[in-house]
Amino acid sequence: MNILVKNILALLPEGNNCVPKKTDLYIQGSVITGIENAPEGFIPEKVIDGTDRLAIPGLINAHTHSYMTFMRNVADDLSFMDWLFGTIDPIEQKMTNEDAYWGANLAILEMMKSGTTCFNDMQMNIMQTTKAVAESGMRAVICRGLVGSGHDEAGQIRLQEAYEEMEAFHDCDRLSFLLGPHAPYTCDEAFLHVVAEEAAKHHLGIHMHLSESMTELENCQKDYGCTPIELARRSGLFEFPFVAAHCVQATPDDIDILKQYNVSVVTNPASNMKLGNGFAPLPQMQEKGINICIGTDGAASNNSLNLFHEMSLVTLIHKGTQRSPQCISAQDAFRFATINGARALSLEDQIGSIEVGKKADLAILDLKNPSLWPCNNPLAALSYSANGGEVNTVIIDGKITMENRIILTMDEERIYYETEKIMKRMGHLA
Amino acid sequence: MNILVKNILALLPEGNNCVPKKTDLYIQGSVITGIENAPEGFIPEKVIDGTDRLAIPGLINAHTHSYMTFMRNVADDLSFMDWLFGTIDPIEQKMTNEDAYWGANLAILEMMKSGTTCFNDMQMNIMQTTKAVAESGMRAVICRGLVGSGHDEAGQIRLQEAYEEMEAFHDCDRLSFLLGPHAPYTCDEAFLHVVAEEAAKHHLGIHMHLSESMTELENCQKDYGCTPIELARRSGLFEFPFVAAHCVQATPDDIDILKQYNVSVVTNPASNMKLGNGFAPLPQMQEKGINICIGTDGAASNNSLNLFHEMSLVTLIHKGTQRSPQCISAQDAFRFATINGARALSLEDQIGSIEVGKKADLAILDLKNPSLWPCNNPLAALSYSANGGEVNTVIIDGKITMENRIILTMDEERIYYETEKIMKRMGHLA
Repeated sequence: MNILVKNILALLPEGNNCVPKKTDLYIQGSVITGIENAPEGFIPEKVIDGTDRLAIPGLINAHTHSYMTFMRNVADDLSFMDWLFGTIDPIEQKMTNEDAYWGANLAILEMMKSGTTCFNDMQMNIMQTTKAVAESGMRAVICRGLVGSGHDEAGQIRLQEAYEEMEAFHDCDRLSFLLGPHAPYTCDEAFLHVVAEEAAKHHLGIHMHLSESMTELENCQKDYGCTPIELARRSGLFEFPFVAAHCVQATPDDIDILKQYNVSVVTNPASNMKLGNGFAPLPQMQEKGINICIGTDGAASNNSLNLFHEMSLVTLIHKGTQRSPQCISAQDAFRFATINGARALSLEDQIGSIEVGKKADLAILDLKNPSLWPCNNPLAALSYSANGGEVNTVIIDGKITMENRIILTMDEERIYYETEKIMKRMGHLA
Repeated sequence: MNILVKNILALLPEGNNCVPKKTDLYIQGSVITGIENAPEGFIPEKVIDGTDRLAIPGLINAHTHSYMTFMRNVADDLSFMDWLFGTIDPIEQKMTNEDAYWGANLAILEMMKSGTTCFNDMQMNIMQTTKAVAESGMRAVICRGLVGSGHDEAGQIRLQEAYEEMEAFHDCDRLSFLLGPHAPYTCDEAFLHVVAEEAAKHHLGIHMHLSESMTELENCQKDYGCTPIELARRSGLFEFPFVAAHCVQATPDDIDILKQYNVSVVTNPASNMKLGNGFAPLPQMQEKGINICIGTDGAASNNSLNLFHEMSLVTLIHKGTQRSPQCISAQDAFRFATINGARALSLEDQIGSIEVGKKADLAILDLKNPSLWPCNNPLAALSYSANGGEVNTVIIDGKITMENRIILTMDEERIYYETEKIMKRMGHLA
């Protein structure tokens, strides 16, 4: 469909930053084909009035586990052990593939309603999140969480599942895939070498949890005599496009390694604080020029999938730890949540900014909200004032998926019904 | 008006905590007259359906400067000096009383839409915020910011203004007043003694900024040989109900003093991080049993007046600094934002919890929002998932001020028009 977004304030790239400009946006098929000037012969089939609205590139959630979303607020303010083994794990044991599907649907619903148009997901039940993405009009990068020791059967089966899924969804343009070795405490060094060989063979990038907790760091040093980041390096994993989630406990040497191998780091500030892991050394990573992006992690440890919340956190908490009001600016946070996320996922030619030739993945915010008014600086407002509820319209791959906060591509009521039913079955809701 | 809120999940006090209970709420005039059981002869004039909704006591913003709200996002990611003297101060110099009035209106609009039903305001232009509160149906505690040296004229004039305002708004039940010596760096010790005498004479509590920045602490030690908190104590200010904003730099001795004198502390996490002041020692204050409440500070240093955002921050950041997932729970944050705020403002008999005999100050949230679904734990959801946009209906003093997100007591469009006009006049908007 040809869409004209008329007379809108849009955040357009200018050098390393984004600047607001009142303009018109022209969309044809899945692509932005004009900014300011109409492409030749353009006849709009749909016109969106941009008055008092702000268009931003759809946000990119670079690390989550969407299937868990029905576990939101089920276990909080607990020690890590009580959280994982007392509540989350028992629920996961009882979880079916269909549960994972509805959990992913709820995640996509929440992300779409808060302006996220692409997410990077580590899942445990193949075909489920992927199916929800394909149906909902969302964009995603998917990896099947891999665990294994050397060439053991468990690892091989999961690798096989990953390839089956890639094959099954080969035709959906909005889906791409990574290999997902889970973490240094669930994959041994020999298995990580296997994953590196697979990545080479299938030309795939890699997504992995790295250096999240002190316990992980200490155990890795005990078992392998090195940090988790050094372990990933010496297993050959950094030879491929690599997206590292967390890196909270990264040492100065680790940061040098991350930079040397062009590893992208996904910071997950809410989850890292909530589980008591602390603050990632983001200012230090930024100084080294590492590609930083933002994730929400899963709803069991956040407990929302709202990137506006994460942008707010990432701009505030490091000002706190560094006692510097200039540390991690609103421009930085916006870059983390858009173009840097795209770069991490090897999608920077397609998404992450509003540019002619890129996919039409847009979130349109209503500026006439008390939290965004007056519009003194729309970019600062995104991190320091917005809560995500101001997102009015979402376009993904050139298709309107939400308009005036009504989701057009999913059955919202059905998702509420099915996810509530899961928690009733689990005995957590009356 | 007699209002029945029917079949609603309500957070009701139980010991020191709040627990969700499906019930009916009965409101007559300004007061909650029944919970579960109808008062004798109750005939509802209005029935609110509580299906899939959550009723909470209206939130209490225990420290803000509402007049500044049109300065939202006007100066960010700057050094404190550039922020204050480069931008905020020049705008304040050009600000009129009418500007302050519209700023306060915008603040009230934002707070109401995010479930705040009472705020504690330090203002510079008398009669303006107060007028906006009186007209809008909001509840507030007001102090005129006082600065002075000894018995100088500036201090005396401002004290006089404070009393004029108290007299002028004497009849509005929703308004009460405190004395507001601004800070140790704007009031000298002799003037603080004057304020203490005035508080005794007029039976007033006190609100003051204390120990916000390292610069304030260092200068106070240089000028007076003691901390700001010790200065306030020895000036006699702690003999009265005292609400201390910030206390970020409080020492262990300071914390003992605060406890000894039953001083309430308002933490302002977003503002404290944003200006590079760091993290208040909240876990230590909590351990001593200090009455902690939450504020947003002004929109020039936050940049939102959304208490859901502050509850989220207060539950997350201290888990980060203490590396403990059990530090500052969702129950704690909710207590800070409700009953503790009421206690700080000497209003605990009237507001801060849903109880028979208390004022009907309620926020009603739509649970059918992806961020709040499934409703595994509504109390945890308030801090860890909600963004404030889920607030559907607000009742203050028994009057419905917002219904289905439509503000009934203010002219929202006029507020947008007037506040935008101010920033255009200031040259900050085209």
